[in-house]
Amino acid sequence: MSVSNKIRGAIEKSSWIRKMFEEGARRKAQYGADKVFDFSLGNPNLEPPSKVKAVFEDLVRDPREGQHAYMSNAGLVETRQAVADYLNTFNEPRFSADDIVMTVGAGGALNVVLKTILNPEEEVVIPKPYFVEYNFYLDNHQGVPRLVETQPDFSFNFDAMEAAINEKTRAVLINSPNNPTGKVYRAEELKELGRLMTHYSGKFGQPIYLISDEPYRKIVYDGISVPSVFDAYPETFVVTSFSKDLSLPGERIGYAAVHPEISDKAMVVAGMVLCNRVLGYVNAPAMMQRAIARLLKESVDISIYQRKRDRLCEALTSFGYDIMKPEGAFYLFPKTPIADDVAFVAALQDENILTVPGTGFGGPGHFRIAYCVSDQVIEGALPGFERVNKKY
Amino acid sequence: MSVSNKIRGAIEKSSWIRKMFEEGARRKAQYGADKVFDFSLGNPNLEPPSKVKAVFEDLVRDPREGQHAYMSNAGLVETRQAVADYLNTFNEPRFSADDIVMTVGAGGALNVVLKTILNPEEEVVIPKPYFVEYNFYLDNHQGVPRLVETQPDFSFNFDAMEAAINEKTRAVLINSPNNPTGKVYRAEELKELGRLMTHYSGKFGQPIYLISDEPYRKIVYDGISVPSVFDAYPETFVVTSFSKDLSLPGERIGYAAVHPEISDKAMVVAGMVLCNRVLGYVNAPAMMQRAIARLLKESVDISIYQRKRDRLCEALTSFGYDIMKPEGAFYLFPKTPIADDVAFVAALQDENILTVPGTGFGGPGHFRIAYCVSDQVIEGALPGFERVNKKY
Repeated sequence: MSVSNKIRGAIEKSSWIRKMFEEGARRKAQYGADKVFDFSLGNPNLEPPSKVKAVFEDLVRDPREGQHAYMSNAGLVETRQAVADYLNTFNEPRFSADDIVMTVGAGGALNVVLKTILNPEEEVVIPKPYFVEYNFYLDNHQGVPRLVETQPDFSFNFDAMEAAINEKTRAVLINSPNNPTGKVYRAEELKELGRLMTHYSGKFGQPIYLISDEPYRKIVYDGISVPSVFDAYPETFVVTSFSKDLSLPGERIGYAAVHPEISDKAMVVAGMVLCNRVLGYVNAPAMMQRAIARLLKESVDISIYQRKRDRLCEALTSFGYDIMKPEGAFYLFPKTPIADDVAFVAALQDENILTVPGTGFGGPGHFRIAYCVSDQVIEGALPGFERVNKKY
Repeated sequence: MSVSNKIRGAIEKSSWIRKMFEEGARRKAQYGADKVFDFSLGNPNLEPPSKVKAVFEDLVRDPREGQHAYMSNAGLVETRQAVADYLNTFNEPRFSADDIVMTVGAGGALNVVLKTILNPEEEVVIPKPYFVEYNFYLDNHQGVPRLVETQPDFSFNFDAMEAAINEKTRAVLINSPNNPTGKVYRAEELKELGRLMTHYSGKFGQPIYLISDEPYRKIVYDGISVPSVFDAYPETFVVTSFSKDLSLPGERIGYAAVHPEISDKAMVVAGMVLCNRVLGYVNAPAMMQRAIARLLKESVDISIYQRKRDRLCEALTSFGYDIMKPEGAFYLFPKTPIADDVAFVAALQDENILTVPGTGFGGPGHFRIAYCVSDQVIEGALPGFERVNKKY
């Protein structure tokens, strides 16, 4: 035996996804990359804002010593203070640098939070459909996902949540704006969720934590904004990154923020700082910490993604696709015209259109289109989308 | 309950180390930072070589698109190829890009390798004294450390190793040059270790892996070089970083390399790439990958560390300390003149000298001096080192 049983299983289980990607690569090689329309990945096509490049240039010319040295595992205090100040512009609770841990992206942040709180076999409630990496992140810390249904418009189903919560429930994990649906939870929904979690925390005698994964917070459309989870419930963590709003996914920079009034805060934050260290992250990349301290109010031009969303929604609806118009992020999650979403995605692939079956997100009967791609890809794919829908 | 039982335990267990650091910080505040001589951390005091800054400046001016985007979880192919070419300059086996996974430092690399290979409760043999973070890294993946004695000069004790190896042994983890001893294992020792591991791999019917942690490979003295573990044994991983030789610890860039003839290589590498992703690292920071591809032959000026080593060894020996002169890295690991190393380190602290008890490395009766500090710190501390030794 070479790799562990668990990893062997994960590799074998994910082999159909890999086959799909390999088939995409094969098609690009055969037909030319410009003839294959790849909507499979959430890799932003927009370049970072020009101010990002200007800050990078400024930082590498900075003659001060120690800029690439180790630091507190929590991160640079000036960056954490800048994040706290930024959070204070749109949340009721008042944050300080001590409420922030800088992390290796949102993936790092989520692993830090989960390792901090989870005992083996404890459960985390996750509304479906959901970002499937959560399964791995929970398993890293021996946690168990407890997936729950949502309403047809992807808003919370509180009956399903209540049925799922029990004495082993350690947290509820939400993602807003949502990958894959683009759903943004409303303030009233979050308040209701907070009331429900307060009730069950009291009933079971320990906090059930709310973890909100918000890397798409700035990527919202039609003038809406993402309500504060911190305003809704005190036992709350927010994890996020600058991968999407600054188009820096390869640089692995993000943070975890704890509610300033979270129970037993000193121990919780000490746990997060320890976990950032012992998970091997050690600290978030130093230069990127320095950069984002000066870039917290920046973002890519969201109107570009909005235009892509509108073009795709309009065209696909006119072809007969059934789509819940996304309010944020850069994903569409239409219903597949046939029940078998894997077969439908294979049919799209025959048109050189690469998407992901909803089954991969706990949302069978749908497929995900990541529209963080060029207009040429969108326009080039539309005839194929129309033909495949007509076929069924 | 807030944090998990395990994390609460780790925080409480490490509280004496924290108290030590807090006492150091209190002394710096009370006496002035220049009156406190801090040898407690392996945070290189040398700035990165000037070529590092030049490469950074070049990279941020590069106008090409997509430089901060997602990439293969293994890392940039041009960086992996550059690492392979570099490894081919001092190892017999021939590496290709496919044998390399770029990681978030050596800590990330080690977690990736351990998660790839470990089933729960499997054991990893580690010679003492050792870098104590290994305990956490093993525990992350439910592995169990099996600590073994070494010879008085810190070379391998093969009898102790053979006694420790059993059917649950999954790997042997070594660190050369060693933290905390500065020991560099010899080619003959490594070959003997390889023979022993080949024997027991055969006996138990599956490879026992050798994992060599080598972030200090370039930091060696008196013209010695670090022999290749790849030349000694085929079932081998090397993990390393650019934290020490390029003084970039805050930037979290390193890699894991697998022996080109490791058994079941396709599965092993697929496992590593998957683990880099699911552990939340996703990929090594993109800009640092681009940078180190052009910096593989660079290092800080090692003669500066050699001078510091020589000055400290000479002075401490003249005061009566018993020291094995380190061959590499930037640590001294002298015997404490009394058996209780924690008490001895406390006595040094009373002289405003901050060091770490050997007990923290599985090496009681010793203390660790990290001499990656300014000459002023070394010179300022010498009288205190002399006084404390005289006291006992």
